[in-house]
Amino acid sequence: MERVVIALGGNALQEKGSAPTAQGQLEIVRKTCEHIADISCQGYEIAIVHGNGPQIGRILLASETAKDVTPAMPFDVCGAMSQGYIGYHIQQALKYALSSRNKNYPVLAVVTQVVVDESDPAFLAPTKPIGPFYTREEAEQLEKELGYVMREDAGRGYRRMVPSPRPRRIVEIEAIRRLWDTSIVISCGGGGIPVIERMDGTLEGIGAVIDKDFAAELLAEDVQADILMILTEVERVAVNWGKPDQRDLEHMSLKEAAQYVREGQFAPGSMLPKVEAAMKFVRTYPNKKAVITSLDRALDALEGKAGTVITFQ
Amino acid sequence: MERVVIALGGNALQEKGSAPTAQGQLEIVRKTCEHIADISCQGYEIAIVHGNGPQIGRILLASETAKDVTPAMPFDVCGAMSQGYIGYHIQQALKYALSSRNKNYPVLAVVTQVVVDESDPAFLAPTKPIGPFYTREEAEQLEKELGYVMREDAGRGYRRMVPSPRPRRIVEIEAIRRLWDTSIVISCGGGGIPVIERMDGTLEGIGAVIDKDFAAELLAEDVQADILMILTEVERVAVNWGKPDQRDLEHMSLKEAAQYVREGQFAPGSMLPKVEAAMKFVRTYPNKKAVITSLDRALDALEGKAGTVITFQ
Repeated sequence: MERVVIALGGNALQEKGSAPTAQGQLEIVRKTCEHIADISCQGYEIAIVHGNGPQIGRILLASETAKDVTPAMPFDVCGAMSQGYIGYHIQQALKYALSSRNKNYPVLAVVTQVVVDESDPAFLAPTKPIGPFYTREEAEQLEKELGYVMREDAGRGYRRMVPSPRPRRIVEIEAIRRLWDTSIVISCGGGGIPVIERMDGTLEGIGAVIDKDFAAELLAEDVQADILMILTEVERVAVNWGKPDQRDLEHMSLKEAAQYVREGQFAPGSMLPKVEAAMKFVRTYPNKKAVITSLDRALDALEGKAGTVITFQ
Repeated sequence: MERVVIALGGNALQEKGSAPTAQGQLEIVRKTCEHIADISCQGYEIAIVHGNGPQIGRILLASETAKDVTPAMPFDVCGAMSQGYIGYHIQQALKYALSSRNKNYPVLAVVTQVVVDESDPAFLAPTKPIGPFYTREEAEQLEKELGYVMREDAGRGYRRMVPSPRPRRIVEIEAIRRLWDTSIVISCGGGGIPVIERMDGTLEGIGAVIDKDFAAELLAEDVQADILMILTEVERVAVNWGKPDQRDLEHMSLKEAAQYVREGQFAPGSMLPKVEAAMKFVRTYPNKKAVITSLDRALDALEGKAGTVITFQ
């Protein structure tokens, strides 16, 4: 049986433009889990990693808004809360989708810490926008009072920027590995709760966001998955995107992918990390493959009928 | 090796009277985990269940306070978030406490749903106070607008009361059982996220709080633990509590415990559910035992030198 680590994008959890309520998320997650259950019932052994950008932003927003009545929660704790929130919904919905296909199989969301390197260059240049929009005056106050890094974002106001360091080690990997053969594990939610490791072995939460595609890649390496599958909004990776000569790719070799990256074909913070994660996976395991596709074509992509496949050669 | 399910009380997570910050919780959790690591290093196979009363109250409070800027989260989701929050801290602190004792052992917090019965009589009479205090006017408004059940609590204002139904089934029990031999699992946080099961098998979150002692008891039954250990603020259960003839108990048989319960010796919502959970465990497994004691006497209690032991005979 082939082992597949599936990284779910934001659109698997929340509909664009719809109200960001828990009920709204649950409805989308239920649809998402129908697709995942189909993959599981086709005989693939799967594990799930999900993003948490909008969710951690809102948890942080609620926490900061209410700070005069109850202490605001630090960033790492908001990440842990988002793992509970999203993990619960996926766990509940996937269990049901499986059982409605007569498959009674354990599904388990686990709280996951991921070690990052304090000397990661990402800490020098925070690039990941998080949480609410502020006015210029509010932004300057936050910079002064809390040491936040604030930046103007997409013309809609100022947002807090946090570093996005690379994942180095999944703290709970041993238990996740042991669960793999007998359960569908939801782990590394939001890329994992970022922690740094002190000299004495203490782990300490830190204000950062790990890209969930890189965390999924690390998990796929650790469990020696056969396929790293990154799900997003488009069926295929494209070059010359949005131009008259846009070309959707069925396949990329590592060399071709590297060339496209050099050409700046992929948007940072969007398609670029997905392609980079895929490249890292096939560089590590030249006999395995990565697939980037959309949720509704995922099963077809596993059967070679859709998506962009990235291989070493 | 003896299997012990440990239920942690509120004092294991937060110091009374201290600021309810995440940092404050982490400091207390670190101390708590020193004790738990000692038990683990003594050769006991343990699993952990924790409460979430104050935490879910504050998550709810933040969420409701911020409802004009971001949608408020329903009760079940707040429970899931509290499992992430508390599970993360215990997981991080216990892993460190173990490794500083040269024990490298997986520790894993898992999101846990617990099925309750929709016809549980608890739904007719909500008894569990949750979240912030309100004025009488605010309380009346919440009753009218959101259908909350509000009640005057301890002379400090009005609070929302939620039902506290009995746990019937731990949804993730299979995976928890498989982890038991090779990991320390933190599960059923806050008694578990309460869900009801629809005719078609759908699970649905519900506004309720399951007593964590009853959830720990159910877990202990399910994994056939040897000992159910309920940790609280006092070293021993007492009768005639606070009176001149107060008597701390080293041992209770099921029959004696039942007699004390009939006499009203134990405070509802406090010592009573602990004693009831202990009684249920030894009724189910007449050859096993339950122990009620304080965190710092836990190891002594396992060796018969402290605590109140409850046995069938």
